[in-house]
Amino acid sequence: MKKIEALSEWMKKEEIDFTFLTSTDNIFYFSGFYSDPHERLLALIIFPKEEPILVCPSMEKNDAIQAGWKYDIIGYRDTENPWDEIKQKVNARISKTCKVALENDHMNVSRYNAIQASFPEINTFIAVEETINKLRMVKSSDELSKIKEACKWADYAIEFGCSQIAEGKTEMEILAAIEYELKKKGIAKMSFSTMVLTGANGASPHGTPGETSVKKGDLVLFDLGVVVDGYCSDITRTVAYGDISDKQKEIYDTVLKAQLAAIEASKPGVACSTIDLAARNIIKQAGYGDYFPHRLGHGLGMSVHEYPSLTETNPLLLQEGMVYTIEPGIYVPNVAGVRIEDDVYVTKDGIEVLTKFPKELQIIG
Amino acid sequence: MKKIEALSEWMKKEEIDFTFLTSTDNIFYFSGFYSDPHERLLALIIFPKEEPILVCPSMEKNDAIQAGWKYDIIGYRDTENPWDEIKQKVNARISKTCKVALENDHMNVSRYNAIQASFPEINTFIAVEETINKLRMVKSSDELSKIKEACKWADYAIEFGCSQIAEGKTEMEILAAIEYELKKKGIAKMSFSTMVLTGANGASPHGTPGETSVKKGDLVLFDLGVVVDGYCSDITRTVAYGDISDKQKEIYDTVLKAQLAAIEASKPGVACSTIDLAARNIIKQAGYGDYFPHRLGHGLGMSVHEYPSLTETNPLLLQEGMVYTIEPGIYVPNVAGVRIEDDVYVTKDGIEVLTKFPKELQIIG
Repeated sequence: MKKIEALSEWMKKEEIDFTFLTSTDNIFYFSGFYSDPHERLLALIIFPKEEPILVCPSMEKNDAIQAGWKYDIIGYRDTENPWDEIKQKVNARISKTCKVALENDHMNVSRYNAIQASFPEINTFIAVEETINKLRMVKSSDELSKIKEACKWADYAIEFGCSQIAEGKTEMEILAAIEYELKKKGIAKMSFSTMVLTGANGASPHGTPGETSVKKGDLVLFDLGVVVDGYCSDITRTVAYGDISDKQKEIYDTVLKAQLAAIEASKPGVACSTIDLAARNIIKQAGYGDYFPHRLGHGLGMSVHEYPSLTETNPLLLQEGMVYTIEPGIYVPNVAGVRIEDDVYVTKDGIEVLTKFPKELQIIG
Repeated sequence: MKKIEALSEWMKKEEIDFTFLTSTDNIFYFSGFYSDPHERLLALIIFPKEEPILVCPSMEKNDAIQAGWKYDIIGYRDTENPWDEIKQKVNARISKTCKVALENDHMNVSRYNAIQASFPEINTFIAVEETINKLRMVKSSDELSKIKEACKWADYAIEFGCSQIAEGKTEMEILAAIEYELKKKGIAKMSFSTMVLTGANGASPHGTPGETSVKKGDLVLFDLGVVVDGYCSDITRTVAYGDISDKQKEIYDTVLKAQLAAIEASKPGVACSTIDLAARNIIKQAGYGDYFPHRLGHGLGMSVHEYPSLTETNPLLLQEGMVYTIEPGIYVPNVAGVRIEDDVYVTKDGIEVLTKFPKELQIIG
């Protein structure tokens, strides 16, 4: 309830009548109940003073209670419209509804229309993301220990992935072997679709693994993460299979230099933009600026992408307790794709790197 | 372009100035380009007469071209706001923007606000889902053959899953073995998180697989699907490990009878509600009505949940070319959870069942 109280405090200050949350992650953060009922409505209604209400398909009611939810639940069947009961229960708690906070990046237009129809006296909607993102951005020691555990498994996954590289093996075979190894060991969920890319495929920053097989002289890029107790890790390593060209080496060395520079620059009080630029400038100076088309990194926690965003323009200052990725990359079509990514934790006076698989170029086979 | 033309025809009739699509599936359906850039904007703008525009992160531009996209692309970097260019390119194509169609169930409030700010002359928004869902609901023979292929793999996955059941094996171990087997054979993606549930866990219609191990006398429920060329299958089978109780058998037999009744009732011209009730009434008559808390089934295609929705109230009539699931279930806490699910295709005068794994109670071990 501590997390809900923090939000309620903000709501009192802002004179918000209720907050209507709809995203799986934020509902998990505040309620402890994880659910993704796809197109069905899942909602958490939080008030400044009154007890919260969870809205979920009736078939998930028991799961919510099992997850420790102790407050009211509105359960509805597929043939029922939950909005009447939402209206009734909200109106039983509060006498007026003028100002409502929403997840603007998640709330869809249908529900936005439904909430306006149910509470016609609403005159102000405000976005709640900024506030929640800032709450979620600074991790408790409990959250940190879950992320550390997820990072250990990410390191292990890369190590295991390297052991699977062999002439003629396809990206998909290597990927399958990694996920099987993790699942056998009890890791239920990856943070996102695992990527194993080789040769020219690695040169797309968001490529799709397929039937391409590894051959000598290729770079092999792994990008993966695991979820432990609801918290994510996210690691990228690029390794060489046999001898690679001087050009490939030059690209690898440039990315590594950039990645280390961003780690070096990271400490409390430094702007996110400064960290991004520490890496970006090295890549630019080496002549590869056009081939680094994404931000340096992103916050990491219950979501694999959360606050802070490490772009070249974000003025946000790092503070103790933040966890984020540092992942510069260079992608030259038909030549090489290299990305090196660590997860880091901001300490009192610097950072701790949580992913530990070696970054010196690993040559396999 | 045929699919885009069908939508453009509707737009001409409705006098819509443009349609602004944001969901991965619908964009894939119309453009052939599959991308899920998470919080970043992916959009497809379709006009009644002019050429369409794709909006994506600049690092995905090449992927879109590779996927066969031949029209304009607005690419943007993480630090750039794509709305100015959207505004400019739309205004270059059409002289007024009064009526715009959106995916109301997908478009979020932030983007809804952005589109209003960019095109202040908009006076009407209309929801496009109904129209697109109806286009997507009736499958072409090409789509059907992809779904059939996905169903074959789903059958194989169940068969393989059954072969993995053994005393003491955990849900997660069995699940991992199934996914590994499929990935090794080149199946890159499951339709949704695979479920393997045993004993009391099976009694939650949306349970989570974990460290529970199989023991004699348990029912084991598999719910899984695979994606082939962008098209999904979705199958559920519940099997017995050793001898099960009379109560468990009674529940199994009731679900099977209900499932067969829904298949029997399915043909063009029959309402979705009639199909749902054909199964639901059998379950009610057997005294388990309260333990079947979800709809009978859902359409299946590029999304694992799409039109039509088979609920007890949907008056929509089945028509040739539809593909949907029939999946009644009974979930009695601490006693048994049974669900049996097939994917079916509506033919000229009946249906074809696409998933073929046996439904008579399979007793393993």
